[in-house]
Amino acid sequence: MATLCRPAVSVPEHVITMEETLDLARSRHADHPQLPLALRLIENTGVRTRHLVQPIEETLKHPGFEERNKLYQTEAKARVPEVVRRALDDAELKPQDIDVIIYVSCTGFMMPSLTAWMINTMGFHSDTRQIPIAQLGCAAGGAAINRAHDFCTAYPDANALIVACEFCSLCYQPTDLGVGSLLSNGLFGDGLAAAVVRGSGGTGVQLERNGSYLIPETEDWIAYDVRATGFHFLLDKRVPTTMEPLAPALKALATAHGWDASDLDFYIIHAGGPRILDDLCKFLRVPPEAFRFSRATLTEYGNIASAVVLDALRRMFDDGGADHGARGLLAGFGPGITAEMSVGSWTVAHREPAMEAAAVRMA
Amino acid sequence: MATLCRPAVSVPEHVITMEETLDLARSRHADHPQLPLALRLIENTGVRTRHLVQPIEETLKHPGFEERNKLYQTEAKARVPEVVRRALDDAELKPQDIDVIIYVSCTGFMMPSLTAWMINTMGFHSDTRQIPIAQLGCAAGGAAINRAHDFCTAYPDANALIVACEFCSLCYQPTDLGVGSLLSNGLFGDGLAAAVVRGSGGTGVQLERNGSYLIPETEDWIAYDVRATGFHFLLDKRVPTTMEPLAPALKALATAHGWDASDLDFYIIHAGGPRILDDLCKFLRVPPEAFRFSRATLTEYGNIASAVVLDALRRMFDDGGADHGARGLLAGFGPGITAEMSVGSWTVAHREPAMEAAAVRMA
Repeated sequence: MATLCRPAVSVPEHVITMEETLDLARSRHADHPQLPLALRLIENTGVRTRHLVQPIEETLKHPGFEERNKLYQTEAKARVPEVVRRALDDAELKPQDIDVIIYVSCTGFMMPSLTAWMINTMGFHSDTRQIPIAQLGCAAGGAAINRAHDFCTAYPDANALIVACEFCSLCYQPTDLGVGSLLSNGLFGDGLAAAVVRGSGGTGVQLERNGSYLIPETEDWIAYDVRATGFHFLLDKRVPTTMEPLAPALKALATAHGWDASDLDFYIIHAGGPRILDDLCKFLRVPPEAFRFSRATLTEYGNIASAVVLDALRRMFDDGGADHGARGLLAGFGPGITAEMSVGSWTVAHREPAMEAAAVRMA
Repeated sequence: MATLCRPAVSVPEHVITMEETLDLARSRHADHPQLPLALRLIENTGVRTRHLVQPIEETLKHPGFEERNKLYQTEAKARVPEVVRRALDDAELKPQDIDVIIYVSCTGFMMPSLTAWMINTMGFHSDTRQIPIAQLGCAAGGAAINRAHDFCTAYPDANALIVACEFCSLCYQPTDLGVGSLLSNGLFGDGLAAAVVRGSGGTGVQLERNGSYLIPETEDWIAYDVRATGFHFLLDKRVPTTMEPLAPALKALATAHGWDASDLDFYIIHAGGPRILDDLCKFLRVPPEAFRFSRATLTEYGNIASAVVLDALRRMFDDGGADHGARGLLAGFGPGITAEMSVGSWTVAHREPAMEAAAVRMA
């Protein structure tokens, strides 16, 4: 069975606090008629700190799509190898043990994808499959987990590497002045994550069933407007209401697995914003504490797009994980509006007999 | 076993001939020091006609990345449903029988991907998986077939829909004056294709084994330079030499399957250009006739990127297909430089007993 192992996460060194974000909004948009609303929305996110690939003065400039996309490449090449190496180490695998790299990122565009560079420079085999996905936005973290699960279901001896690389600050558009844009400017952060899905062995979430759900007629609720200045993020004010139609899809997935989505042992949920988490708690009838890992990601890093679910899972590992057999739900949400969700059980790798014996002796 | 059914193909109504292409190159680049070389390279492609989504006068204008990308969306929405419906009909399936849509396209960028619009407007279930791939270029046709194969291997009752939508003319960049660009301007055409991979049943190529291969250190041989003016296609003059390192990968895949890549019954190969086909014939030691379907695509449509392999396969269907059990090789090539390849056998769907009996009576 496919097991999603410990994710490795990295956030850039430049930090901006909530206070600094609010001050910036006040000074840059002093005359904006909806400034009070925007400030309130930003405060309500609960995002205390975000990490950026550049100092804030540089982030606020727009040197053009070409420069930004070059910076995306430079930063990705500088930062991806380290999280990948940690993820491989945590899964006790080498690059040459990986059969497919699923690279998800919606904040820069490269062809060939970074997968080609990774294979050339990091010791992966030349026959490693490449699945680059740029068009699933924040849902791509869940999609990457699910496609890795599918791949290991097709080839039980295979191992998949997932990489989510999101530099949301490189999509800052100074001329976008709608309330949705001002809110986004205070919500999204930069971060990257990698994790291995092992076809067999490994400690983490044994992936057992996955699914996808598109809320009908919501295509333009989260979208990119593609312009000469790059990707312009469009966020409809109805997005926070989407948990009502998505909760039944999450419940249906759990039910198909013989589980009750309201009564699971852990939840790793995309922290798109605070209302997403609050509403989903309500509609799934679970206590807020159940989403503590996702909430910590939102508070400390902001919405880091496709990397959120991997960071929330990393926090669960840091917290000691769960008991063997504990049942859980993972879900990413993003444009479409699409949910990419899965259910699985916490599994602890079988220890070597020698180690077991040693453990017994030490007991 | 997963079966790749008959592809449906569509090319736009605006046609440009080789003579018109050469005349345009002569008139627009009269002072270009390498014009004679560019003309010779274009002539050597053997591309007799190409189809474009706009009349040539419009194609030659550059109204900006934003306008072009909007046109991409409009044209995709206008043209994709028809090929999808035909592909479904040919596979004897309905939209609600499809479990995953793999949409590959490198000539426009949308988020959400066209998959969301298709699900909303064409009768697909809301839980259809979406795998949009924009970053594998011409190799994405092969990649889509391979990922559909993987998905049906993981879920044998599932059906996958592949869509390849390429409007290469929307990436024409009038200011790119290198010889590689002039050649590309005469080589690429517009086209779109759809095909179903059925988890069981169906007539076509039973997909049995797939693989990927990246030629080391060739990342920048085929690439996009991403600028305010959109995607600028970079084509290195060494690309035509890539069949020498790729042929061993194709042979290895066939060998792993117990087959000899030089002695198969059919070949469906990406027609990147004439030298690709000529060289691969030589290195695989097969007669030129073996690549006749790919060559016909190149001659009549030009290089239609990820849609080439599907169009070449469509031509094989139109030609009557092959005998049940005939062994074949499929391969797409693109940026990386990556080959996405598969081997499989021609299979003819089991006919209904009533039809068999009728056939016997009529014999």
